[in-house]
Amino acid sequence: MYTSETFIRVRYGETDQMGYVYYGIYAMYYEVGRVESLRQLGLTYRELEEMGVIMPVLEGKSKYHAAALYDQHLRIVTTIHEKPSVRIKFNYQIFNEDSQLIHEGETLLVFANKKTRKPCRPPEIFQKILASFFDE
Amino acid sequence: MYTSETFIRVRYGETDQMGYVYYGIYAMYYEVGRVESLRQLGLTYRELEEMGVIMPVLEGKSKYHAAALYDQHLRIVTTIHEKPSVRIKFNYQIFNEDSQLIHEGETLLVFANKKTRKPCRPPEIFQKILASFFDE
Amino acid sequence: MYTSETFIRVRYGETDQMGYVYYGIYAMYYEVGRVESLRQLGLTYRELEEMGVIMPVLEGKSKYHAAALYDQHLRIVTTIHEKPSVRIKFNYQIFNEDSQLIHEGETLLVFANKKTRKPCRPPEIFQKILASFFDE
Amino acid sequence: MYTSETFIRVRYGETDQMGYVYYGIYAMYYEVGRVESLRQLGLTYRELEEMGVIMPVLEGKSKYHAAALYDQHLRIVTTIHEKPSVRIKFNYQIFNEDSQLIHEGETLLVFANKKTRKPCRPPEIFQKILASFFDE
Repeated sequence: MYTSETFIRVRYGETDQMGYVYYGIYAMYYEVGRVESLRQLGLTYRELEEMGVIMPVLEGKSKYHAAALYDQHLRIVTTIHEKPSVRIKFNYQIFNEDSQLIHEGETLLVFANKKTRKPCRPPEIFQKILASFFDE
Repeated sequence: MYTSETFIRVRYGETDQMGYVYYGIYAMYYEVGRVESLRQLGLTYRELEEMGVIMPVLEGKSKYHAAALYDQHLRIVTTIHEKPSVRIKFNYQIFNEDSQLIHEGETLLVFANKKTRKPCRPPEIFQKILASFFDE
Repeated sequence: MYTSETFIRVRYGETDQMGYVYYGIYAMYYEVGRVESLRQLGLTYRELEEMGVIMPVLEGKSKYHAAALYDQHLRIVTTIHEKPSVRIKFNYQIFNEDSQLIHEGETLLVFANKKTRKPCRPPEIFQKILASFFDE
Repeated sequence: MYTSETFIRVRYGETDQMGYVYYGIYAMYYEVGRVESLRQLGLTYRELEEMGVIMPVLEGKSKYHAAALYDQHLRIVTTIHEKPSVRIKFNYQIFNEDSQLIHEGETLLVFANKKTRKPCRPPEIFQKILASFFDE
């Protein structure tokens, strides 16, 4: 298991007229969660693409427990529970400033060759670093 | 069961550098799907809010079968399978210009009082019109 | 001069907690305005990119006269006042359902080679069709 | 004159298929620039709204000198050149990781009463703190 956290500040443009963060914005928050999660391992998605690998999303799930509000400083906890293969699953928990769990999400992504768009193994360095968090 | 369809044109700002519609945009497409679906029944979400009822999202699920691309004219088929109560579930199927099913989604929403933010029954007119599509 | 119009329905996710369309959304509305404006001439931006030409934006200006609101059906009037060269300027006027002019915008774009990213002339077909609206 | 800086990391969802940050995203970056600029003075827009004052945008201008790219850590320099009254103008300069000035923007906002939506003076505390940066 690998877990990490990052913070995000809610932007005005992310709210809707209900006064909540628009429900479609969370996918962007997940993206920040997983990208910063990888960066903390020394892996950047930017470099991954430069190595010719992209990571399209295959599946997503979201549970909205309570609303996120404008200007709140949210804590995003990102976890990889299972050893990644050609696919990698991220789980997200989002907490507001009162440490209340307001949101849970999950995304399944696939490593794919940037040119052929076919599924592929991630670069060696990715495999190695990620594997170190999981028992064989 | 109630089903309806609507069309959407992919905007440039909805694509990402992979050349696909960004995975977080689909939530907005679902919104268009369900809003137009209700409008075809003579029910508008705008009026619902004016009657003091809002519809926050509780849960969402997404399956990305194939990418949507810039400028494509997508067909969104929105279906309500079960008779709504305080909660209402919408299913979405998105088809590209070649009639290929590229995406499936599901959202569970709750009717809530705009002031108290507590769950509530939808206005009579909503209940009546929606109920007519479901066997007792 | 070439002028055309198109319509847009305000999405919930485009509003902010002020109850207005978020001020950053108008750039997307301009995009719809100019893309549909070209389409009405038989020119699509999609094809332009397929011909190896992109159109990055160089400058933009916006005047917010009155707020656009959720679910409003807005009319976007897009005008090209001057004969385009390597650069092309679009003006936008946005009207609400009461025919009130609520917004004015302007964007200056440049035709550029997709590979080199250097400014270039648009494809012949673009030049020909667009030129027909302007006196020599 | 009052000037301050803040940083922003470009999100994947903010890029478009040209491989650039979509031109409509900059308005959101300006928002972050001015909100963090005020926060550094001990003034938060969140509190301003709680005091019953909103700040709709009246005018905007943008100059796109060079593209911002995915994952870049951008520096936003926000400046108030003139003493604010009922209106307040912010200027933005955005620099990429090579300290290159890639973008300039300007927005004119108005303080308005949240209920009446009419222009108004900002709260005393705002006036006092902001005034201290300008010669009488």
